[in-house]
Amino acid sequence: MKAAVVYKTDGIIEKVKDVLNQIGVSYTLFTQPTPDLEGYDFIVSIGGDGTILRILQKLRHCPPIFGINMGRVGLLTHSNPENFQERLKKAVEEFEIEIFPRLKCNMGGREILALNEIAVVSKQPAKLIHVEIRVDDILADRIRCDGIIISTQIGSTGYAFSAGGPVVDPYLDCITIVPLAPFRYGWKPFIVNIERKIEVEADNPLVIADGQTSAEPKDTVRVEKSEFPAVFFKNDERFRELFIKVKNIC
Amino acid sequence: MKAAVVYKTDGIIEKVKDVLNQIGVSYTLFTQPTPDLEGYDFIVSIGGDGTILRILQKLRHCPPIFGINMGRVGLLTHSNPENFQERLKKAVEEFEIEIFPRLKCNMGGREILALNEIAVVSKQPAKLIHVEIRVDDILADRIRCDGIIISTQIGSTGYAFSAGGPVVDPYLDCITIVPLAPFRYGWKPFIVNIERKIEVEADNPLVIADGQTSAEPKDTVRVEKSEFPAVFFKNDERFRELFIKVKNIC
Amino acid sequence: MKAAVVYKTDGIIEKVKDVLNQIGVSYTLFTQPTPDLEGYDFIVSIGGDGTILRILQKLRHCPPIFGINMGRVGLLTHSNPENFQERLKKAVEEFEIEIFPRLKCNMGGREILALNEIAVVSKQPAKLIHVEIRVDDILADRIRCDGIIISTQIGSTGYAFSAGGPVVDPYLDCITIVPLAPFRYGWKPFIVNIERKIEVEADNPLVIADGQTSAEPKDTVRVEKSEFPAVFFKNDERFRELFIKVKNIC
Amino acid sequence: MKAAVVYKTDGIIEKVKDVLNQIGVSYTLFTQPTPDLEGYDFIVSIGGDGTILRILQKLRHCPPIFGINMGRVGLLTHSNPENFQERLKKAVEEFEIEIFPRLKCNMGGREILALNEIAVVSKQPAKLIHVEIRVDDILADRIRCDGIIISTQIGSTGYAFSAGGPVVDPYLDCITIVPLAPFRYGWKPFIVNIERKIEVEADNPLVIADGQTSAEPKDTVRVEKSEFPAVFFKNDERFRELFIKVKNIC
Repeated sequence: MKAAVVYKTDGIIEKVKDVLNQIGVSYTLFTQPTPDLEGYDFIVSIGGDGTILRILQKLRHCPPIFGINMGRVGLLTHSNPENFQERLKKAVEEFEIEIFPRLKCNMGGREILALNEIAVVSKQPAKLIHVEIRVDDILADRIRCDGIIISTQIGSTGYAFSAGGPVVDPYLDCITIVPLAPFRYGWKPFIVNIERKIEVEADNPLVIADGQTSAEPKDTVRVEKSEFPAVFFKNDERFRELFIKVKNIC
Repeated sequence: MKAAVVYKTDGIIEKVKDVLNQIGVSYTLFTQPTPDLEGYDFIVSIGGDGTILRILQKLRHCPPIFGINMGRVGLLTHSNPENFQERLKKAVEEFEIEIFPRLKCNMGGREILALNEIAVVSKQPAKLIHVEIRVDDILADRIRCDGIIISTQIGSTGYAFSAGGPVVDPYLDCITIVPLAPFRYGWKPFIVNIERKIEVEADNPLVIADGQTSAEPKDTVRVEKSEFPAVFFKNDERFRELFIKVKNIC
Repeated sequence: MKAAVVYKTDGIIEKVKDVLNQIGVSYTLFTQPTPDLEGYDFIVSIGGDGTILRILQKLRHCPPIFGINMGRVGLLTHSNPENFQERLKKAVEEFEIEIFPRLKCNMGGREILALNEIAVVSKQPAKLIHVEIRVDDILADRIRCDGIIISTQIGSTGYAFSAGGPVVDPYLDCITIVPLAPFRYGWKPFIVNIERKIEVEADNPLVIADGQTSAEPKDTVRVEKSEFPAVFFKNDERFRELFIKVKNIC
Repeated sequence: MKAAVVYKTDGIIEKVKDVLNQIGVSYTLFTQPTPDLEGYDFIVSIGGDGTILRILQKLRHCPPIFGINMGRVGLLTHSNPENFQERLKKAVEEFEIEIFPRLKCNMGGREILALNEIAVVSKQPAKLIHVEIRVDDILADRIRCDGIIISTQIGSTGYAFSAGGPVVDPYLDCITIVPLAPFRYGWKPFIVNIERKIEVEADNPLVIADGQTSAEPKDTVRVEKSEFPAVFFKNDERFRELFIKVKNIC
């Protein structure tokens, strides 16, 4: 087995190598994620949720990811510098995985993927955009706002969280649509079936996937479930820890 | 085929009889729902959403319901006094149905069912209760509030809506947990998989199902998906109309 | 000088007596607040915010209150069991006071006062009431909800907080009007000048002042600033501590 | 008397001239606001709220403004194309005015004024900034968000409204502080006395006054009440119409 180790800071890199050597896994080190990561049997991410999101931006076919959290809340990671050794060993030995849907958005031929969210926002700070949202070709809303967040359940603790969306079970596949700073008396987040197709019409917006990749769409922004999900080593604590972690978002 | 017609006001009752006669369906009239409704092939409800919720309180095995809206928003109904004739005929002829999960709550031997929500509230108005919420035996929250709403997706436009919950796709089975007037700096609605088991611990609360049936639990309130769903004639406009109807909640 | 000492628990009562003896103040002990408290030069409250609110329910002309917090957050108190001795001495010696407006509500001849809020709520738990709100004879809103909170700035960290109201500067006299669990797509808290007169029309509601005194109004509920404010010893830390305390509301 | 007429569209310009001629007021026409407007006895603004905000950006000493609404909601205007003739005549004859506080913000020597709000936002769309907020030198909050809105009561129906702030009485001088898309479990708008001094510390933000004038501060952003208020002809309907207008924000 071949592992890719992606790290942002090198504090624990030697210990990670030791673990991989112990369990007989060869590895390559990366300080930046690249599409080459697709060729490995699994990926170890040393960093925060941002590191994992950056890795995923480079991948269509995603090998299982194991995250060692060096950052803040760590909603996507499996372990921390104190407990990663035992957990990483166990993860690789059992090799149980879980997959989470990603969203895709076609930008003039290029396909952008997002595990957390596709944000369609005003290009200019503090400037309203007029937005029209359709779900399965049905007009869902017309609203003036700073932007629209289209989020997976995993992204419910990302930008959609800031915009006023609810916390969603990682094991409930769905899409949350929530406006950013809506200039209207009434509004609500909408939670819809993951199979629905979302369209956003806006004048000259910016599209941002997972806070990482941005594009300037020429016409209607179409968002739907991708056939390339994110793959992680199974995290038995994911649901249990969710309730603690969201309260620590600060 | 035998239909039960439940009506609150008799304004259009003659016209409903005419339609049923035309399509060769015998019928019995009810001014109050009873468990006997289980014995009919389908139910016509003349009234508002409240009428349908009252009917469902009487039923475990639920015949398909067709709703003629005489009330306000009418999120559960299929038609109004202007267009029900054609729609009712078509519904009975095609006999396509759709089912929506109900929640059950065991109250000392008695099982309470709810299509919208189970509300666990303070018995005394304007009096905080201390609540502990567990999801699949995991402590999700401890909070002081006026109550806790445990809602289905259908109930997302009911009491959970008032409490600050999002609008949920009728075709996304899930449970929303949302506190009522939480006395805390931070809180969020939680949306979880419909298969999860919810427990609410509170001092001496009142449990209310769909705003209709109440009980005073002796111990922990346990809420989970019932094996007795609500059954409706298929409403092709349900999702399309959702976006319009929620904006008209007033 | 004569002090009244109102205490709920007797843990530190001896120490309080010592301080009063040291500064030559005679005192009377009360385990329950009574209107007789009006006859004292000042009041020492040993308990939480609830104790102070209960004291105020008995008073029109309010002697300055000094609060020793034995409870949770303690937004109205001046000290805790660790630091009250020095602070109480200083307060009595300097005798600097500050006043905060109270709201009054006429209930068939009887006048109810509130430092925090007048809540007009549904008598029956989990039951909507139809409410009409007028401000200075102007129709401000018609809404279906569990109730309406009419709060002072001090009450912004009370029931109005739970209902979704903002945190208001203790030194900005104003009235917050906020619905409790509004069943409507859009709503907002309203913050108005303290001199405005508020009227609430509802079918058979319950009126509750500061969570303590309740009444069943026969007709329109009228709320306005009372000529009998609450009087406290000056608390130089009030504004500074506000930001810390609100984050600890839990 | 000399009037300045600022107009964006010329649809009713001839009728406005007629009114001014009738009441013996000479006038100058402006298609763009300039600082020269300070030299006139009053200003007629033909356009929407944005037109008035743009006029105010040019003025320190503000002559009374009369607004004819050609736009959407028109919270700052006095009349519309149907009723402006009578109202404008009456306003000039009675010459009753009202003033509303503006906020000022010192940007490296240059002073920016705002009637609605000073927004301190992320320069980059969809990018969190770390913000520290102090009120009268007291640390009020540290929060990660898209920005911070510091708003007057008049601005409570502007950007602060979108960000989740309450609706504030135009006749209650105060400052609202509300984060934009806060990435934190708990947050609340803060409403403070208009005399308080607000400081915002952030890495490299953009400062935007009334959505019109922007600047890139080198250090701490300081916001406080300006000695140059906005001056309007008295609008007797301002408070009455507030409740209707906010519900029409869409």
